[in-house]
Order: sequence, then structure tokens, then C-alpha cells
Amino acid sequence: MNKTVSFDYKPALEFVEQREIDRMGEIVSHSKEELLTREGLGKDFLGWIDLPVDYDKEELERIKEAAKTIRDDSEVFVVIGIGGSYLGARAAIEFLTPSFNNQLTKEQRGGAPEVYFAGKDISGSYLNDLIRIIGDRDFSVNVISKSGTTTEPAIAFRIFKKMLEKKYGPEGAAKRIYATTDKARGALRSMADEEGYTTFVIPDDVGGRFSVLTPVGLLPIAVAGGDVDALLEGAAAQRKISLDKDFDENPSLQYAALRNLFLREGKVMEVLVDYEPSLHNLAEWWKQLYGESEGKDGRGLFPASYDLSTDLHSLGQFIQDGTRIMFETVLNVENPPSDVTIDEEPVDIDGINYLSGKTFDFVNKNAMHGTRLAHTDGQVPNLIVNIPQQDAFSLGSLFYFFEFAVGVSGYTLGINPFDQPGVEAYKRNMFGLLGKPGYEDLTEDLKKRLQ
Amino acid sequence: MNKTVSFDYKPALEFVEQREIDRMGEIVSHSKEELLTREGLGKDFLGWIDLPVDYDKEELERIKEAAKTIRDDSEVFVVIGIGGSYLGARAAIEFLTPSFNNQLTKEQRGGAPEVYFAGKDISGSYLNDLIRIIGDRDFSVNVISKSGTTTEPAIAFRIFKKMLEKKYGPEGAAKRIYATTDKARGALRSMADEEGYTTFVIPDDVGGRFSVLTPVGLLPIAVAGGDVDALLEGAAAQRKISLDKDFDENPSLQYAALRNLFLREGKVMEVLVDYEPSLHNLAEWWKQLYGESEGKDGRGLFPASYDLSTDLHSLGQFIQDGTRIMFETVLNVENPPSDVTIDEEPVDIDGINYLSGKTFDFVNKNAMHGTRLAHTDGQVPNLIVNIPQQDAFSLGSLFYFFEFAVGVSGYTLGINPFDQPGVEAYKRNMFGLLGKPGYEDLTEDLKKRLQ
Repeated sequence: MNKTVSFDYKPALEFVEQREIDRMGEIVSHSKEELLTREGLGKDFLGWIDLPVDYDKEELERIKEAAKTIRDDSEVFVVIGIGGSYLGARAAIEFLTPSFNNQLTKEQRGGAPEVYFAGKDISGSYLNDLIRIIGDRDFSVNVISKSGTTTEPAIAFRIFKKMLEKKYGPEGAAKRIYATTDKARGALRSMADEEGYTTFVIPDDVGGRFSVLTPVGLLPIAVAGGDVDALLEGAAAQRKISLDKDFDENPSLQYAALRNLFLREGKVMEVLVDYEPSLHNLAEWWKQLYGESEGKDGRGLFPASYDLSTDLHSLGQFIQDGTRIMFETVLNVENPPSDVTIDEEPVDIDGINYLSGKTFDFVNKNAMHGTRLAHTDGQVPNLIVNIPQQDAFSLGSLFYFFEFAVGVSGYTLGINPFDQPGVEAYKRNMFGLLGKPGYEDLTEDLKKRLQ
Repeated sequence: MNKTVSFDYKPALEFVEQREIDRMGEIVSHSKEELLTREGLGKDFLGWIDLPVDYDKEELERIKEAAKTIRDDSEVFVVIGIGGSYLGARAAIEFLTPSFNNQLTKEQRGGAPEVYFAGKDISGSYLNDLIRIIGDRDFSVNVISKSGTTTEPAIAFRIFKKMLEKKYGPEGAAKRIYATTDKARGALRSMADEEGYTTFVIPDDVGGRFSVLTPVGLLPIAVAGGDVDALLEGAAAQRKISLDKDFDENPSLQYAALRNLFLREGKVMEVLVDYEPSLHNLAEWWKQLYGESEGKDGRGLFPASYDLSTDLHSLGQFIQDGTRIMFETVLNVENPPSDVTIDEEPVDIDGINYLSGKTFDFVNKNAMHGTRLAHTDGQVPNLIVNIPQQDAFSLGSLFYFFEFAVGVSGYTLGINPFDQPGVEAYKRNMFGLLGKPGYEDLTEDLKKRLQ
């Protein structure tokens, strides 16, 4: 049977007493009830809770069909989206596929096209570089936007739409554009209906940062060859634990409790730590989930991440001995996808022969254990999330573990974990400076401030 | 004439008064004198100060020759190093070359091989993925390590050395191994002398995080096609400003002053912000330079980074409205390598026609200006570093700007900016757990703590 993720807070018991944890356990259990009664803050955005069991089965079949078509007719697949319409799919694909995956042959990728992300920034040179990579090869586009008017994906989509039309004609282009958007409203929905794009729905009650298990994440993941059924099964298995289990057996509740304890004790930053490069973008997904859910009303733990052991050779000094502001949550992949054995050398000039016959993962795990103890000694508490495998089931479990925990944690913090009012501030200013219709009143004042 | 970087602290004047800056200007000017008299803390590691003008010219020629050989005889170039033996070259190559550079043809890269980094982590699956990418193609290796015994690069080097020997025989392998190491001592020096590798010297008086303008950075940068002469010229031009100019005209001094003012006012984190994906690894280089130099004795600003506008859609909420702990230093590329114009659409469904005829960079710059004002309103002070071009001269100027500033800033903070005692803690524990000879005494106690 597939295993779900597990959570271990024993390493933190040097910093918090069990009775504090028990007391916080009562508080987060109350937050869990508040979440599940669906009467709390942001209650219109709780669709993610039941998503792994209560999704549109017919739509999932359509996703798989679309993925099959794209895999058959495309060498390149461009995913256009930003924030929650980008980070989950990217995290999943990098977690599930080898490093340098786009440089393998299509056959080595099991038939998947190369997958690239666009509309995630406003760099013209990045866009030109990507266009050069596509060249004259067959490609398809998945544009992901609830409204269709978010600037970054909208301007990128204009470019790729034109490229497709030039290459395949208007009708051919429309067959290669997959729009993931609102079911009824918005610019992208209108355009999709008018042009006849294949469409998938972003549910009204699921916010962007909770949308990886909707078509937002599922289509790109399926195109890349990810097992979306196993992904949903893993999430469903974790959901059962999150909903049914008491604090003592509930990883999400325990994680929510510990991070709130550290916050109350004065920590201002949580660092998500990985020991596999392929988990880098999982941490980026987590940063949005936690930063955007909790970073409001002047509160919240700042979410940072390290790739170790790499960053021990850059940030290790600060972690060990700099300003004492952080705790760490370590992602431990129990069984990595592959491993390498260290050979014996006839002459042991580098002094590494004591490791001969051992594997890289053996060294990596001991680096992890040693680092945990060193950071503990440096007054940086450690929590551990154990991930059984780098497979879709484990990933689904992990996604849900973090999602449920942030809902509980946000309620415990006393904020609405399901809104993001602060995201609008830069957009308003940008629109004012760009002279967007409706924002002209802001322009003069903003330009004056810039002088 | 080529322009050096410039620094603009005007946006921060809402948070600090000019008289505070003037007062801090006196303090950092004193720190500068302390640095230049070479009598302060860490005085044995100040070789970087004169490096751009006082380097081994003969060695630079040898670097260029080696780069030419590697470009001629290799499809792939593997750079093995970690920390300061990794981050500078990676930052420079990504700054100077297009995105997806390894996916272009050798001809499109101007004759450069694909460049990959290894020995920067302990992931066996990353290593296997990289080995698969190399395949049976011709490759060379640059192993970079002062001692030759740092675990991460040492175990990776064993693997690639064996691969080279299998493919080219022992002598052929030795011709394809370039060792950047100590001039006289250490395991890698011994091995190189014994096997006859081409070697380059890591100067004794330049610490790892200051080594990008030594052969550590210069060889990989030259192999990738970077103009190392222009890089050094840019650094030399910036050095002249750093050494000769008074506070009012000295960007490094001003930057050191402002960040120390913010630290004293209670900020605990500095975020380096970029608006071009190709600057991502420059921020990683900066994180080591600042985190490792200042994060000690329980002090220092935690160095973080964002790629914008990407991360405005994930961390933007926190920045705007979460815990108030940070200030931002924005990297502004004044003239990006290329740009894309937004076309008019006959029907303006997405409401973007107001931007038709405008370029991505125009939008990007206004996102930057709008964000700066929004974050200022959210009580996050902004500083700006203007980078004239994404070219080698600008980059050399930028490297030196940050290096000089961190020396001054560290002295102002009252710590030794040139040591890194905290980096050893995890290594000791790892060695104990791995049973490394000489560390057996630690093993039992560590294993007990892990139970």
C-alpha cells in the first residue's frame, strides 16, 4: 500500500515542552473544527478541502484526453500562467521527472513534449529565448487565468497565440490552445468560447494557491507524464487523515501547532529545506501557499527556502551563527529515484575511501541528520516532513498535508488564510503608470513620486 | 565608454533622514579606511581588493588557452565545486548567456560547450541525470576546491574522473581535467601534480565567496564565452570608484551605510530583487557574499531574494502586508539583452490594447516602479542598483560593488566579514555520523541524539 507523508516534531522538543504542544494541539483542533464547519473567514474558498474526492470525473477524463492529444501532436508545450496558475504544475513536474528533462528525447520522456513556462514574468529577453527554443517545432499552449486579464499571462498569450495562428492558421491555432479559466465569466472565457478553444474550469471556491489539484495543475502534470490518478489518490488518503484523526495522529495539525508555537516565541521566519534539487520548486509553491495565506495584517512567518547541502556553503554560516530569527522544516525524501555508489580508489589522496561502497544518498542522509543537530545546537529548531517516494501518490499526500495545515494555521493566527488583498497594490500602481483606462487618475501622482 | 553600476537611495528617504545618512556616511568612511589600511579583522583575506588590477597576467592567458582547448574538444563542460567555488561562475554564465543556453546548438552558443554544475549537492539522482545528459559525448571537467577534501565536490569528482578514464584512458583523462586549487598544498594539488592536470591557483588571500574574479570564476566564464577581460575591466573601473571617491559619489559606501541604518532600525532581512530571470543566480551569489560575511555572532541581515514580477504573485502579499521585517535592494537592468513588442488585437477582449506598440520591457519597468512605490507605502524601504547592460563589463562592476560594500558593511557591523566559522558545524556532525577517521569520538553521541 502507498504511504502518506509523516511529520516528526521530536527534534524540536529541545525548544518547546510537550505540555505547550498539547495546549496548542487543543487550539489548532479548534481551528480545524472552525475550518470544517465552513463558517469562518474566507468560507467561500474552501473547495480545496473535498477536491481530492469530490471532483468532476468527466472533466478529469477530458484532461487525460487533452494530454494524450498534446503528447501526440506537440514537441513543445507552453504553460502560460503566474502565481497559483504556475507554481503547482512546475513543482509537480520537477518533482516527478528527471533533472534536465527537457533535454532528453521525447522517447526518454515516455512520449511527453518539452514543457516550458511563460507569462510568469515580464522579461522580453526570456520570452525571445523561449521562442528560439520552440523554433519551427509543433507546439501547443495552455493558458491559465481566472480572469484572462492578468497582465503577465495576457501579454505572453498574445505573443504565442499569434505564433500559433501564423503557423497553423486561426482554426489550427484554436485546436492547440487549451484554456483553463472561469466556468462562465471573464475575458479568457469569452475568448475561448468565441474561438472554440478546449477549456477546463477553475472552480469558484478554490483560490489560486490551492488550485494544483484542479485542471490548473492537472493538465500540465498529465502532459508531462505525471500520474494524475495517483496524485489525487495520495491527496485523498491525506485528506482522510487530516479530517478524521485527532491531534496525536494528525500531521497537518501538528505542523500547524508547532509553527504557531515558534511564531509566538518570536521566530519571524520559517525555512523549508530540501536535500534534492528536484524539490526546489516545491518550496516555491509552498512559499506562495504560506506567504500569501498568512502574510497579512502585519503578521505571519516569512517563508524562505534552501536547497541543501548546496546552501550550507552559502547561507550555512548565517543559519548556524547569525541573527536568531528562524526555524526549519526539512523535506526528507526517504527513497530518492536513483542513487550512485562511491568507489574505492587505489590511492586515497582525497581521504574519501572511508566512504567507498557507500552511496550518495547515505552521505546525503547523514548530512541531513548532522545538519539538523548542528542547527539545533545553533538554536534553530527543526521539524521534519518525511516523503516516502518521489512519486505522484506521495506528492498528492504532501500537497494536501500543506494545504490543510495552512488553513488550520491561518485560523490559529487569527487571519483570513483565503484572501490576498495586498497583491493588488503593485498592480494598481503599475496600471496607473502604464496609463491603463480607468487608472488615469493615479498616473500624475505616481509619476511625481518617482521623480 | 562603458558605464559602471550606480546606486540610488532616494526611494528610501521616506524612512531615513539625510542627516542620519550623513552620520552613517562618516562611520562607513571610517570602515573603508580600516579596510584599506589592512590592519582590521580578517586582514589576511583582502586579496580581492586589488585583484582587478593586480592579477597574474600569465595565468589569465593560460585560462584563455585552456578555455579555447575545452571549447574545441568538448561538447560538455562539467564544473565541480560548491559555495564560492560554484556560485560566481553560475551567476556570471546565466547573466551573460541566454535562457536555455545548454539547449542551443554549439554554433548558436558561439562555440561554447554545454556547461553543467556538479558537486554542489549530494543528490545521487541529480548526478545520474547529469551523467545521462553527457551520454557518450566528449566532455571535460573543471574541479574547483582549495583543499580537495570538501565532501560534495570530492565524491562527485571521483565519479567524473572514473568516467573520463574509462572513455579516454588515464592520460587522456588527465588532459581533460582542469584543477583550480591551492598553489602548493592540499589533496587536489597533490593529485593534480601527480596526474599532470592543468592547474590554476586559488590565491591564499582571497576567500571563496570573493573568488569569482580569480580562476575559480574566470575559467568557467571564459569557456562559456564570457569576455573575461571586460569583466576585469568593469571590476577595475568600480574599484577605482570604491577606493577613490568620497561618500557622496561612492555607491558601495552608500549601500553599506543604508543597509546598516535599516539594520539598526530593526529590519532583520534584506531582499535582493530582480526583474529578469537571468539574474536569479546572481542573487544566490550575493546571498553567500552577504550571509556568510555578516551572519555571525548572532548578528546580520538575513539575505533573501525574489524574482519579480513572478514572486509578486506568491510573496507579494507578505511583502505588502505581512510582518514588517524587511527592506529591498532592487537590481535594475537598464537595457535588457532583447525585447518584444506587444501587438494590437482587432478585438480587445483581454483589455490589453492600451499596451499595443509598447514593449515588454516598458511594462516590466513600470511594474518595477509601481512595485517600488507600493512596497514603500507598505513600509518596505527600497534601494536601487542600476546595471547598465547585461554584459561582462557591467557584471564586473557589479561584483566589485557588492564585494567592496560587504567589507565596509561588515566592519561597520563590528564583525569579521572574512571568516566563516559556523560552516564547520554541520561538517563535523556529518563526519561523525559517516564514521570519518578522526571523528569517531563524535559518532556515538550523535547517533544517540538522533534516536
